[in-house]
Amino acid sequence: MNETLYKRAFESFNSQGFLKLIGAQIESVEKGRAVISLKKRPELTQQSGVLHAGVLSALADTACGYAAYTVVPDGVDIFSVEFKINLLRPAAAETILAEGRVVKAGKRLIVTEADVTDKESGALITTMTATMIPVSG
Amino acid sequence: MNETLYKRAFESFNSQGFLKLIGAQIESVEKGRAVISLKKRPELTQQSGVLHAGVLSALADTACGYAAYTVVPDGVDIFSVEFKINLLRPAAAETILAEGRVVKAGKRLIVTEADVTDKESGALITTMTATMIPVSG
Amino acid sequence: MNETLYKRAFESFNSQGFLKLIGAQIESVEKGRAVISLKKRPELTQQSGVLHAGVLSALADTACGYAAYTVVPDGVDIFSVEFKINLLRPAAAETILAEGRVVKAGKRLIVTEADVTDKESGALITTMTATMIPVSG
Amino acid sequence: MNETLYKRAFESFNSQGFLKLIGAQIESVEKGRAVISLKKRPELTQQSGVLHAGVLSALADTACGYAAYTVVPDGVDIFSVEFKINLLRPAAAETILAEGRVVKAGKRLIVTEADVTDKESGALITTMTATMIPVSG
Repeated sequence: MNETLYKRAFESFNSQGFLKLIGAQIESVEKGRAVISLKKRPELTQQSGVLHAGVLSALADTACGYAAYTVVPDGVDIFSVEFKINLLRPAAAETILAEGRVVKAGKRLIVTEADVTDKESGALITTMTATMIPVSG
Repeated sequence: MNETLYKRAFESFNSQGFLKLIGAQIESVEKGRAVISLKKRPELTQQSGVLHAGVLSALADTACGYAAYTVVPDGVDIFSVEFKINLLRPAAAETILAEGRVVKAGKRLIVTEADVTDKESGALITTMTATMIPVSG
Repeated sequence: MNETLYKRAFESFNSQGFLKLIGAQIESVEKGRAVISLKKRPELTQQSGVLHAGVLSALADTACGYAAYTVVPDGVDIFSVEFKINLLRPAAAETILAEGRVVKAGKRLIVTEADVTDKESGALITTMTATMIPVSG
Repeated sequence: MNETLYKRAFESFNSQGFLKLIGAQIESVEKGRAVISLKKRPELTQQSGVLHAGVLSALADTACGYAAYTVVPDGVDIFSVEFKINLLRPAAAETILAEGRVVKAGKRLIVTEADVTDKESGALITTMTATMIPVSG
């Protein structure tokens, strides 16, 4: 893990009220990659008692965003332009991990992917492809 | 508004912990259409102080899901298979509305779309296309 | 229909070998909107004898691209960044129409949508959301 | 490579007029994976002389479809429900390869992914996520 990249991500992360609300946490950050974790709570579920698709997409989007954040210079912020998510199986996991990766870091756009997995079993729950845009502060 | 469809959606809605957490509310439900609203709060924002993409996608997905829910018989539940979202402008609105519509109700899959708008100005913030799957209880 | 916009689109269109190969034609062009048509031929089908998904996506992408092309100045070209397509029903039509529309024309990205319909029956066959990027020549 | 799976894919492939038109070829087929190749020709290009996005999406969709085809029993056909494509760089390659993979083979839906690469340099040109539906003959 890269300490400088982690600190920078951590500061930005802490300024996101919504990530606090759902209890997301940064697990690790390195060049082109970020892992975010989340523990299941009843307030994060849908009608079947598994994690809501909105929670899964928030976590995957966050992993994609912080992966992109590691490949832009200081003072540049990252915003989601669009994303596409596939919900492969019910998110019955107690803890989930979202791993975001940079697929292509262009000057104008950064394309990323994320996998959301059950931390215990490793089962793949959700995949995302997200396009991020770097914006100078 | 259709009272029977509204009651049925309302019951399901209330069993979703996450929708309560973010403060989503059903505005109206009719055949093939559902409108969900949400008020901005600091706990729902990202680093720039506007609504988090995860909140927008949760709301749009919910509007799509309840639109699909109006075209299936009692005892059939609706699950999101996949969705794609475009974030068109920062969600600086105080209240947002997500309107979900059924585009094609097939036997095996239901294709839906949603627009998320600023309630006051009407500005289009986010669009979603979502594929839903009906599952018999 | 806007003559100037049509001529400009027509010139660009004619420089696309693939559009000639599949027999796509510009039907109309106006500010923020382009309609492309295509006649079914055996060389454009898949194993069931209906139009191949690749043909449908080419046509929808082209409609989105030329819709975007109407909102940028001369000398600026348009490229597809990403698109998402839903195939709603088999494309058994003899002639299809793809109507592309600009949803949001930003400085850095242009978000577009297209509907592909059966020209005769009007049935909706395919929907697309596409993100376009303007690039100065 | 699995001979039985290859023969089955080959027969279906040959019944697709559009794949013949663009000159796509099956390179290999094994359980959960299919590779399709294509040589650049002027008839397959867009205005900049690189492969048209419609060609790239046709090829990636085909790789996804035949990957899915390897995990269903005889007599079951595969149709694309929806796909999402990211165009990462201009397809200037002389020959491209599309590798499709099954991500999740459910009873009702099969989720797949494809990478399109430049055969010579290995550069990643396009990624796709596609949802396929198995339909009994």
